[in-house]
Amino acid sequence: MFDSRMAQKAAENLEKLKEKKPLVHNITNFVVMNYTANALLACGASPVMAHAQEEVEEMVSFAGALVLNIGTLTPYWIDSMLKAGKRANEAKIPIILDPVGSGATKLRTDSAKRLTDEIAISVVRGNASEVLSLAHEGSRTKGVDSIHSVDDAADAAVILAKELNTTLAITGAVDLITDGKIIYRVSNGHKLMGYVTGTGCTATVIIGAFLAVDSNPAEATTTALAYFGLAGEKAATHVDAPGSFQISLLDALYSIDKKQMEEGAKIQIQ
Amino acid sequence: MFDSRMAQKAAENLEKLKEKKPLVHNITNFVVMNYTANALLACGASPVMAHAQEEVEEMVSFAGALVLNIGTLTPYWIDSMLKAGKRANEAKIPIILDPVGSGATKLRTDSAKRLTDEIAISVVRGNASEVLSLAHEGSRTKGVDSIHSVDDAADAAVILAKELNTTLAITGAVDLITDGKIIYRVSNGHKLMGYVTGTGCTATVIIGAFLAVDSNPAEATTTALAYFGLAGEKAATHVDAPGSFQISLLDALYSIDKKQMEEGAKIQIQ
Amino acid sequence: MFDSRMAQKAAENLEKLKEKKPLVHNITNFVVMNYTANALLACGASPVMAHAQEEVEEMVSFAGALVLNIGTLTPYWIDSMLKAGKRANEAKIPIILDPVGSGATKLRTDSAKRLTDEIAISVVRGNASEVLSLAHEGSRTKGVDSIHSVDDAADAAVILAKELNTTLAITGAVDLITDGKIIYRVSNGHKLMGYVTGTGCTATVIIGAFLAVDSNPAEATTTALAYFGLAGEKAATHVDAPGSFQISLLDALYSIDKKQMEEGAKIQIQ
Repeated sequence: MFDSRMAQKAAENLEKLKEKKPLVHNITNFVVMNYTANALLACGASPVMAHAQEEVEEMVSFAGALVLNIGTLTPYWIDSMLKAGKRANEAKIPIILDPVGSGATKLRTDSAKRLTDEIAISVVRGNASEVLSLAHEGSRTKGVDSIHSVDDAADAAVILAKELNTTLAITGAVDLITDGKIIYRVSNGHKLMGYVTGTGCTATVIIGAFLAVDSNPAEATTTALAYFGLAGEKAATHVDAPGSFQISLLDALYSIDKKQMEEGAKIQIQ
Repeated sequence: MFDSRMAQKAAENLEKLKEKKPLVHNITNFVVMNYTANALLACGASPVMAHAQEEVEEMVSFAGALVLNIGTLTPYWIDSMLKAGKRANEAKIPIILDPVGSGATKLRTDSAKRLTDEIAISVVRGNASEVLSLAHEGSRTKGVDSIHSVDDAADAAVILAKELNTTLAITGAVDLITDGKIIYRVSNGHKLMGYVTGTGCTATVIIGAFLAVDSNPAEATTTALAYFGLAGEKAATHVDAPGSFQISLLDALYSIDKKQMEEGAKIQIQ
Repeated sequence: MFDSRMAQKAAENLEKLKEKKPLVHNITNFVVMNYTANALLACGASPVMAHAQEEVEEMVSFAGALVLNIGTLTPYWIDSMLKAGKRANEAKIPIILDPVGSGATKLRTDSAKRLTDEIAISVVRGNASEVLSLAHEGSRTKGVDSIHSVDDAADAAVILAKELNTTLAITGAVDLITDGKIIYRVSNGHKLMGYVTGTGCTATVIIGAFLAVDSNPAEATTTALAYFGLAGEKAATHVDAPGSFQISLLDALYSIDKKQMEEGAKIQIQ
């Protein structure tokens, strides 16, 4: 039922992460900075948050991956993201974009599109409306309003991934990942994750960490989401309310070992 | 002793909140963004933090309530609050102001007064010195320095609520709420709440969520404070130190049900 | 083995802190604002975060200590730090600097040096590379790259402390504190502290609180680090993963009493 090679790769990526401890440079939102830094530490990576235009190019050059998140954007922060992103592109450092709220306001949609236009992004992670809002006018990608089923979303994502030449991850009860060729589905996770702010943003930084140790963006993303979802499942075995859950989730990220990862991953390839 | 109609209304408001899941738009301070977002999720609402002047008017138009908090203000953020507030006024979206530190520095006092002057605010929540600092020169409201008793504060609050045409909530061991006509007192709460940063700011966002489901600002405020105080009491039954308490407080916000709310509310009407 | 007079002073400082409840003004980074505010509350101090150039001079004048932390710096924030710092100097309010990432980017190194050049700083706390990056060109202080042992770092720190006329605290498995004359070493602490973001920044704010009640900067710093390290040890007796640990650490800061402090301090004087 679940893909055993991908389960094994999830375990291997987790082990590599704990060995290499890559620096992950985040230009992200104010709400989640503390929690995502703690999540990165818990999974073995080393976080740095830096957004000043005077230093982002220098800072990103030390990093194994760059995380861009527009959750509390202003134009200054978008310009910092572009500066860091261009340098990351030159240095072949992978970039993941979390287009928080793209589709909801013009500033967010325009900024997310500007980022995908002006820099090469390895992975975009968001919910269906955020991810599919990145389609250009006249694109073959159907708008979010016309998505009536999970299969519609998958079709739209495959087309958009090809257009943007990137890997897309639409997370939800079942996560859908595609690079325009292969579709991966991850069914790890727990509903309490929806009651903790920034779990989406946290999924994004964990993908960032996995990108630093796996040169295949779609597989890095899929295995990272299986790991994060499995941590949610483990956390929920101890607790049943969101305050305790957010703490147990960090504990689970820290304590999941290679064997648990390989046995627990629920990844399907279409 | 305690008002049974208000206890029943607290339970009803909580139930409405969990059904309607209103979006609460926050322009708030950096210290509490994560915690207040988690508190809003725990009580059933949907938080969004957005402060860019390019998008606040668009964002607030989707919201059931707007929370303005000046805890780490700069002039840019105050201008964003004014933009969002004016649009909220046009759309009849209720606004709650938390004038953190008003009275302590000129920037804070002037900014809080500017907000109450230029936009219509449904509720102001703070401690006695913050709330009463909003009185204008020559106002009949006595200054904070001349407040010698809880009764003095109540008298001053009634006068100021009429002058500002708003509901005022002065929170403390006993919370005092008035719209200038009726005085409500809430005696729910626990002293550990004073050892967690941003519990005042959290009270504010929960009032914001209740404003989105109750068109009577004084009753929305009073019932929200009874709910938040009851959560503090429930949290303190499990733990006795502030780290654990802040987590249990989120758990309690999530798990209090209609019956517990109705039985636990300690609201008096004067 | 451990210095009993310093252990006693640690206990006395902790008691003074809980009595005086000094206001600690923080101009700090976005990642740790919430956690350091909670740590200050847990240890009995009163935190305020304020960075607007219009108010920092007024705000710092109420404070018992000023904490400057460049973790998510921009030039605007550095200018705010300079304004607040100059006023603090005039009013003889002690200042502690946390030069996060100094040595890593030019902006950080230049900003940290500008702060130590233009204002009188009582204490600088960081890791070895951050602290030693503050040496000027042509300084007798050896660069970080030439530090091959703990003894090398101690020698360099003593020279640099004299040059900068300040107390330096290099924290790690064993903390090293020197005012250029005496070298103190603190061996309290636990390895899980390295898995929680901002534990270094938290050490800094606790030193800030101790500076507000102890006029000897080196002894304030040493006793604060013993207290913080002891809290880490206590926290680790209950838990074994970083999410739970960060919460237990706040609980331990709150609950350590005078007797536990005196018995638990592991301070050596060289």
